[in-house]
Amino acid sequence: MTGTPAAPSAGSATGAIARPSGRAPAQMREVRIERGYTRHAEGSVLVSFGETRVLCTASVDNKVPAFLRGKGEGWVTAEYGMLPRATHSRSDREAARGKQGGRTLEIQRLIGRSLRACIDRKLLGERTITLDCDVLQADGGTRTAAITGAYVALVDAVRWLQARREITRDPIFGAVAAVSVGVYRGVPVLDLDYAEDSDCDTDMNVVMNDGGGFIELQGTAEGHAFRRDELEALTSLAEAGIAELIAKQREALAG
Amino acid sequence: MTGTPAAPSAGSATGAIARPSGRAPAQMREVRIERGYTRHAEGSVLVSFGETRVLCTASVDNKVPAFLRGKGEGWVTAEYGMLPRATHSRSDREAARGKQGGRTLEIQRLIGRSLRACIDRKLLGERTITLDCDVLQADGGTRTAAITGAYVALVDAVRWLQARREITRDPIFGAVAAVSVGVYRGVPVLDLDYAEDSDCDTDMNVVMNDGGGFIELQGTAEGHAFRRDELEALTSLAEAGIAELIAKQREALAG
Amino acid sequence: MTGTPAAPSAGSATGAIARPSGRAPAQMREVRIERGYTRHAEGSVLVSFGETRVLCTASVDNKVPAFLRGKGEGWVTAEYGMLPRATHSRSDREAARGKQGGRTLEIQRLIGRSLRACIDRKLLGERTITLDCDVLQADGGTRTAAITGAYVALVDAVRWLQARREITRDPIFGAVAAVSVGVYRGVPVLDLDYAEDSDCDTDMNVVMNDGGGFIELQGTAEGHAFRRDELEALTSLAEAGIAELIAKQREALAG
Amino acid sequence: MTGTPAAPSAGSATGAIARPSGRAPAQMREVRIERGYTRHAEGSVLVSFGETRVLCTASVDNKVPAFLRGKGEGWVTAEYGMLPRATHSRSDREAARGKQGGRTLEIQRLIGRSLRACIDRKLLGERTITLDCDVLQADGGTRTAAITGAYVALVDAVRWLQARREITRDPIFGAVAAVSVGVYRGVPVLDLDYAEDSDCDTDMNVVMNDGGGFIELQGTAEGHAFRRDELEALTSLAEAGIAELIAKQREALAG
Amino acid sequence: MTGTPAAPSAGSATGAIARPSGRAPAQMREVRIERGYTRHAEGSVLVSFGETRVLCTASVDNKVPAFLRGKGEGWVTAEYGMLPRATHSRSDREAARGKQGGRTLEIQRLIGRSLRACIDRKLLGERTITLDCDVLQADGGTRTAAITGAYVALVDAVRWLQARREITRDPIFGAVAAVSVGVYRGVPVLDLDYAEDSDCDTDMNVVMNDGGGFIELQGTAEGHAFRRDELEALTSLAEAGIAELIAKQREALAG
Amino acid sequence: MTGTPAAPSAGSATGAIARPSGRAPAQMREVRIERGYTRHAEGSVLVSFGETRVLCTASVDNKVPAFLRGKGEGWVTAEYGMLPRATHSRSDREAARGKQGGRTLEIQRLIGRSLRACIDRKLLGERTITLDCDVLQADGGTRTAAITGAYVALVDAVRWLQARREITRDPIFGAVAAVSVGVYRGVPVLDLDYAEDSDCDTDMNVVMNDGGGFIELQGTAEGHAFRRDELEALTSLAEAGIAELIAKQREALAG
Repeated sequence: MTGTPAAPSAGSATGAIARPSGRAPAQMREVRIERGYTRHAEGSVLVSFGETRVLCTASVDNKVPAFLRGKGEGWVTAEYGMLPRATHSRSDREAARGKQGGRTLEIQRLIGRSLRACIDRKLLGERTITLDCDVLQADGGTRTAAITGAYVALVDAVRWLQARREITRDPIFGAVAAVSVGVYRGVPVLDLDYAEDSDCDTDMNVVMNDGGGFIELQGTAEGHAFRRDELEALTSLAEAGIAELIAKQREALAG
Repeated sequence: MTGTPAAPSAGSATGAIARPSGRAPAQMREVRIERGYTRHAEGSVLVSFGETRVLCTASVDNKVPAFLRGKGEGWVTAEYGMLPRATHSRSDREAARGKQGGRTLEIQRLIGRSLRACIDRKLLGERTITLDCDVLQADGGTRTAAITGAYVALVDAVRWLQARREITRDPIFGAVAAVSVGVYRGVPVLDLDYAEDSDCDTDMNVVMNDGGGFIELQGTAEGHAFRRDELEALTSLAEAGIAELIAKQREALAG
Repeated sequence: MTGTPAAPSAGSATGAIARPSGRAPAQMREVRIERGYTRHAEGSVLVSFGETRVLCTASVDNKVPAFLRGKGEGWVTAEYGMLPRATHSRSDREAARGKQGGRTLEIQRLIGRSLRACIDRKLLGERTITLDCDVLQADGGTRTAAITGAYVALVDAVRWLQARREITRDPIFGAVAAVSVGVYRGVPVLDLDYAEDSDCDTDMNVVMNDGGGFIELQGTAEGHAFRRDELEALTSLAEAGIAELIAKQREALAG
Repeated sequence: MTGTPAAPSAGSATGAIARPSGRAPAQMREVRIERGYTRHAEGSVLVSFGETRVLCTASVDNKVPAFLRGKGEGWVTAEYGMLPRATHSRSDREAARGKQGGRTLEIQRLIGRSLRACIDRKLLGERTITLDCDVLQADGGTRTAAITGAYVALVDAVRWLQARREITRDPIFGAVAAVSVGVYRGVPVLDLDYAEDSDCDTDMNVVMNDGGGFIELQGTAEGHAFRRDELEALTSLAEAGIAELIAKQREALAG
Repeated sequence: MTGTPAAPSAGSATGAIARPSGRAPAQMREVRIERGYTRHAEGSVLVSFGETRVLCTASVDNKVPAFLRGKGEGWVTAEYGMLPRATHSRSDREAARGKQGGRTLEIQRLIGRSLRACIDRKLLGERTITLDCDVLQADGGTRTAAITGAYVALVDAVRWLQARREITRDPIFGAVAAVSVGVYRGVPVLDLDYAEDSDCDTDMNVVMNDGGGFIELQGTAEGHAFRRDELEALTSLAEAGIAELIAKQREALAG
Repeated sequence: MTGTPAAPSAGSATGAIARPSGRAPAQMREVRIERGYTRHAEGSVLVSFGETRVLCTASVDNKVPAFLRGKGEGWVTAEYGMLPRATHSRSDREAARGKQGGRTLEIQRLIGRSLRACIDRKLLGERTITLDCDVLQADGGTRTAAITGAYVALVDAVRWLQARREITRDPIFGAVAAVSVGVYRGVPVLDLDYAEDSDCDTDMNVVMNDGGGFIELQGTAEGHAFRRDELEALTSLAEAGIAELIAKQREALAG
């Protein structure tokens, strides 16, 4: 990926900035999307953003949560987990601690909202598709990889329903992908890995659809506040990255 | 508040848009900040954004969490709660259900991060300030009211520490406030109330400091994706609203 | 309140006893009952016993617990909470700890039983009224303030049901109020505040109705046991205090 | 036990009242106190009030809770449990439900407070005695039987400490026992069994010491409020019952 | 019990091995089975294996778990608990800790599976029998005593159903009992007590029916692995022990 | 694998028995052991028994549980989890339900005990090795695959410690592997897959070391009891299977 004009940062221009991975500011990690990774789920995708690997499965259930019963609409929801040793040092198993942490709940709510933005729940009918996103290995960007992979698993589950003629009209009306962007040592960069993520001023997760619209935008500056021009540079970087990801999704679904 | 040029929406120009409250698109609800609302806490603020009322207390403790022990740094953290009947219909008491929901955890993490962005934790020393934000009455925007009020409670607690000469240099290096913005019936509007919040396409919570920098930006489009120009209109509206809020905070602290 | 003959203690007679607040032994704190404190609940009362402030809301739900379903009776129940910094030093948030403590459960069971003693549940019909009593500020006597305020909220909720003609005959058949009494430095006193409560030999919570009957009586002597004559002096004090409280309730409801 | 003058009720006088058990109003059930029921605990007592059977063990631990560490004082605390099928119909196992109910917590707090009223915690030294009261069979009055039996187990544990010369001066300064009283079909009666308990107007649990002082008094009138003369009749009945119980405790400890 | 040929160990032959209790290798502790120990349950058995005492109650409920509803089959399940001071030193109360430990869950699953192996669930009909096995005193072998006693309680509950003519054909088709065996200081021994259990190489719990078939076999060698010949010696010992236990069960049921 | 004489069943002799997979009675599924599957853990192994795939990681921590502190010994423990859609139909996520089920706890206790049987904890020193066994895909035999794979991960973690010279003498003193055996349609078979497991009379999990000793033996007959000759046939089958598995482990560790 060369010459992405969307990242007009000084650092990029001079080439002076050194990302730990040696990547250019607007360069994503290698992305791989592997369908059919496990065999029981209606959709099962292993997605990798470099060393980050997330298993996304889509499970179809012919029930909906209580608040939707009898309304003729379906539901799409997500759960997120991290294997205890997906990370550099082992973290406690949430099942053993007896509850999911705030970060986990926040991420799975984000994944669920993101994917509900690409599906017509009336056309889905009274069924629930649950997207389980389990991180096998973490190196930054697990939530954005999860959204990107879960979209493919969701499409596979919908295709499975169509193949069995349980639904006739396609409820999927767009693609959804996600990427992180951030300001690393003063330079806006695309697709942060762990080394960057743990040492950057601003971190933003961007979810977009294939029409170029924003679904979710979550920017955080725990230390240093970011300016409007940085916001623009970051969203431009994200747009470019998401275009790449949507192309990868198409390729995988065509495969 | 008249003629805010930051909200250049067609609806606003033509006057065609009707917010349920009758407010202009760039018009905030009446904001009140009442210090010393309760007497035990080192800082205690009742903040109102219209009918939304949040009690924010700041409590000083001479301990820090385990991960900071012995590092000579302090900690600022937040907890958020909603009284069961703060809302239109009664919701379950989280203490009785035995756990805090995902929304609660997400909000209290947001409040904590936001306030840590205005304080030098080295200067605070090895102590924790906990901001309890409890919603007495909800009418949309509880998290943004909470951040805005908690900042004032935090300053009061720091002043209390200074008055007792427990800390000598002021650790507060800026003001932080928050407001919501959204696209309601096609028009960007400032400071959503419940009627708007439950019926809008895009909802964004913006946390900024008094230098005009973004601390947190969380935009969501569960139905309809938003475009880059809408993002710009929304952040401009937010900037104007936050300037107003910071003025209110100063006024309250001067009072 | 002058010359209450119901507290014939030596201390009172000689004037030698010094309550921390300077009150006479049979003198209550200033009691205020403010209806309509919040707007969503069917009944919403802020009750103050001096510096103790409790928000009591009554919520109507058209369902009953499983054990009453189909029996044509209603239910009245209570939940109690204390904001973390209602107290001198911050206490843990029960929702965050994941369970309500024994003291909380004991108090909310007491409130529920007390209020069920003034309502005909057959006339209420198959609906539940939940009384949420949340302590905004604590200075002793939170449970007795809660019962006294919750009664007014309950009446307001019943009036709301009557105004909507959901029930026709009035199910409320009496008033209920509560006060604490105790032996402080050898002298029976009425309406203990925190300074007295944490330093007294005997502490008794008394719930009575407007007919002068006892609903609940809970006396505790963790250090020094109390004698029958003290029990009589304490219940006499309580009777007088409750008469005052019931007058305040009437006044508030008439307002 | 004949002619207790303390229960001057009409029913008692005429003999017209029929307790389900055939007992006279002031007649307790048969009380048995069996020491050494199990072998590991420092004190182990099976107490029976008629068909109510509670196993009370006292366990000595050379630690105190955090709030007492380093103060040179000991602690006495209690836990209460009911075997699932101690009752007429099986109730859920609290360990399986994952929490102790409000009733359980209330009872174990009552037992702990009651027994702390007969021991000098300074003389006990920095150790904890835990009284586990487990109901093997329930027929009303489990909490009063538990207190009565736990006192004997506590004394045995203290004797065990004295025999090992871990403490030299006796920290026990009085006896404690408990009984329930109530108004059953208009007549004050002593020591309610299940048939009475589930069908009476007023139910009162009374804890007293051997000096005739009240330790705890918990009266409840869920339906019908009780008058001052009933309160007096009930406490007189309780006094007589407790005198009997304290005699039984002495006899058991002498045995 | 003399000359059991099933324990052909060198130690047994020479008589050199000293079990802490002085028992011969193939000698069980004294076993007692007391029916009707408590009065509310449909079956209630106190079983003792020496100093190990377990109260087993059987409760009949006219419901089945969700996964069996409408299938015309019944269910038999078990719960296991240990009173806190059943053991040498007090262990935490599981209800207070808020969850059952792994050992508890493992044992109650074992008891449930074992007893389902002797009952025709079709003939039982759509009802559940719950076996509560609560250890009053522990000295090794609590799970095997529990299974042995629970079988008798189960039969009593079935007889109760038959006496009320709720079921007509007997669903019990065999007896089930359990015993532990182990290699203690190199010698296979029967029915380990606590002193042996905490100091042996191999520990095996064996559940068998009266036809000599194995229902469950759980052998563990945390230190030293066991050989095939040891497995044979142990299962032979167990067979003999279980024959004794089944005779005791018959005797108790005939009583 | 041909001609295993250890499984002398009639079915095998006549060829009449049809395992769903078409395997011979004594034929294992294809076993693969892939080291270094993820990069952060000190040991990381993906083990497959046919379609059953378990990720086993070994994590080294320089702490021991409280009960071992200061004793100069290490600890080896295991946790087990199943991804929600590892199975045919989705099961609830244990972290979301708030507790680990009995089956999970039972399995992780089994894995821990099994691996502690091959390591000298004194030589390991005061550190803990945690084996996380997470099932990515389940088709029967997940616990035996987990033990077999976890052994290889454990050896890798020990080698890592040796390479860093944190320990000098090798604490591993043997190999451990596990396999399931069962009676399927009357014939003893090795290494049950899901189709067999859910439809067999007896199911036994066998853990052995490379010296031919038994570490754990857990046989269950929920329907039909098994006889001593079946036990012998099953353990013979298991011995042969485990020899194969230990050869695979050696091969993987040599690779």
